[in-house]
Amino acid sequence: MTSELWKTFEDHFPKVVQALSSPDGKHAGNGITWSYERIKEVLEYNVPFGKRTRGLTVVSSFKLLMGNCSQEELEIALSVGWAVEILQASFLVADDVMDQSQTRRGQLCWFRKPGIGLQAINDSMILESCVFSILRLFCRKKSFYADLVDLFHQVILNTEMGQSLDMLTSEQPTLDLKEFTPDRYAAMIKYKTAYYSFYLPVAVAMYMAGISDAESHEQSCSILCKIGSLFQIQDDYLDLYGDPAVTGKIGTDIEESKCSWLVIEALKRVTDEQCKVLETCYGQKDPEKVQAVKDLYRNLELEAAFKQFEEVTYNDICSEVEGIANSSIPKEIYLNLLKKIYKRQK
Amino acid sequence: MTSELWKTFEDHFPKVVQALSSPDGKHAGNGITWSYERIKEVLEYNVPFGKRTRGLTVVSSFKLLMGNCSQEELEIALSVGWAVEILQASFLVADDVMDQSQTRRGQLCWFRKPGIGLQAINDSMILESCVFSILRLFCRKKSFYADLVDLFHQVILNTEMGQSLDMLTSEQPTLDLKEFTPDRYAAMIKYKTAYYSFYLPVAVAMYMAGISDAESHEQSCSILCKIGSLFQIQDDYLDLYGDPAVTGKIGTDIEESKCSWLVIEALKRVTDEQCKVLETCYGQKDPEKVQAVKDLYRNLELEAAFKQFEEVTYNDICSEVEGIANSSIPKEIYLNLLKKIYKRQK
Repeated sequence: MTSELWKTFEDHFPKVVQALSSPDGKHAGNGITWSYERIKEVLEYNVPFGKRTRGLTVVSSFKLLMGNCSQEELEIALSVGWAVEILQASFLVADDVMDQSQTRRGQLCWFRKPGIGLQAINDSMILESCVFSILRLFCRKKSFYADLVDLFHQVILNTEMGQSLDMLTSEQPTLDLKEFTPDRYAAMIKYKTAYYSFYLPVAVAMYMAGISDAESHEQSCSILCKIGSLFQIQDDYLDLYGDPAVTGKIGTDIEESKCSWLVIEALKRVTDEQCKVLETCYGQKDPEKVQAVKDLYRNLELEAAFKQFEEVTYNDICSEVEGIANSSIPKEIYLNLLKKIYKRQK
Repeated sequence: MTSELWKTFEDHFPKVVQALSSPDGKHAGNGITWSYERIKEVLEYNVPFGKRTRGLTVVSSFKLLMGNCSQEELEIALSVGWAVEILQASFLVADDVMDQSQTRRGQLCWFRKPGIGLQAINDSMILESCVFSILRLFCRKKSFYADLVDLFHQVILNTEMGQSLDMLTSEQPTLDLKEFTPDRYAAMIKYKTAYYSFYLPVAVAMYMAGISDAESHEQSCSILCKIGSLFQIQDDYLDLYGDPAVTGKIGTDIEESKCSWLVIEALKRVTDEQCKVLETCYGQKDPEKVQAVKDLYRNLELEAAFKQFEEVTYNDICSEVEGIANSSIPKEIYLNLLKKIYKRQK
């Protein structure tokens, strides 16, 4: 990822905001002007302050797939890259309400802002609509239009289904460790994170570059979901073992009874007696109980287990990518993403 | 609307649920099964208990436009009719969370059910995704597919923008009557209700019947938004003057500071002194203040003003429809809808 690309992507954001917050002739009129101003405000507060990895991956993958591309093609890729960032913002605005979070990306969560509150739910829905407005405004006449729209819809549904699973284990009144199975965990992280964070940006670039055959997409999806699952496992690890000064957040997965990689691995290793500690202490705010879970994790050597898992998984995915024959997708698309996340601290 | 059509529509719902809650081969697997069961549960609780006017309008309009249609075409119309009902359910589930409502369609609001809570936000998003899953499952190969998808997206965004305007006036910490302008009211009801409740079902039928030219859609949209605006004005009237035993709900627009037709009309008629009553009493829970607003409305004879408005508007729209020349849309589509809502009590 070059800093030049970052700058080009950055400079394109105001154009997207302008397109999304300008009434067309049909919809002009005094009464509705305020709504367009609201869209601008929601976009500018919630979209630009992330890492932008997903949006930039659209553009960098598209360039790698195309070799050369015209200015018009680049503009479309930049716009659709921002659509992916807006989708991410839509999920985060809604997630923060559901999780009752305090801060996001170094500022107050949108729904915590005075005068916003539960209206944030509607704003999250508006952000999702903006994703499809971008596709309509910038690619309606392209041959890949229907494929892109379908892709976004399917990935959105997958993410929502993953979010369902996530809340199934964490938002229940009583803890039921039987819900924490490796199968369910694997499905949850693939659905809630991997599809939209890793497969979506590359798949978007593939369709825009004219690659639409099912076989190519299944292969990419399989590899990118493995990378995406590793990414979410790292997230679970960093929630407890990351440095808050670096990650920018203080983890609360234990308190919130999240179905995290750590608790799944703990359950694989516990004695009956240790399991009782989890049953009594997991998912509770009491600092002593949280500490008991942390102590258990230390006794089970989960930090070392994670480091080993990360290395083995990294090597496995690298081997799988190296072994691909006859693909229209440059391997560096996968390898760049994988290298970027390997041993990440934030 | 025949009872036969109602029955056919009713019988089609389980097929739609089945299609939406069955994993395809790619997505089968133990971990995600629960999520599909959740989709089924959310659909069955939230979708079938409405008046179904919107969904049935899709099917009846399609039949009128086609004259004859094949069993396959009818099945698609029934499925897309349910898509419109599912969209409605998606809005209602989210609205109930935003408004902190208690009951809906004679049962507890979904988010009030034990164990659901703010997860309802994600369920509302899932319902919206189901709309597009239906289009993908039943019409992906049809020539009207992209038009239908675009139509739904544009109408969804309009509805969200109208919802924004609605909450702008009602969710503010202090009352500002300057926000209650006729312009803004007209835009709000058109955007939050008319597009999705009246234009969408007919427009869907038009696209499915091969009518996609901009001129036909602009004409239909203009008339149907007028009918839809009248419908919302009736809703505002019934909130206060309807019989709760008939409407099934006890209105709270005054307490909740809603930008209602009644307060807009009151503001047109008040003396400076009467305006002070609105300033001190509108948007407050105190029963004496609510009564003061009701008394003011009575002094301003708003009930009679509504009845006159309804009659004049009904006649105006009828005349406009009768005066249309050279349209591919049978006039009875508009007139049936208009007659159905005229002088409605619920």
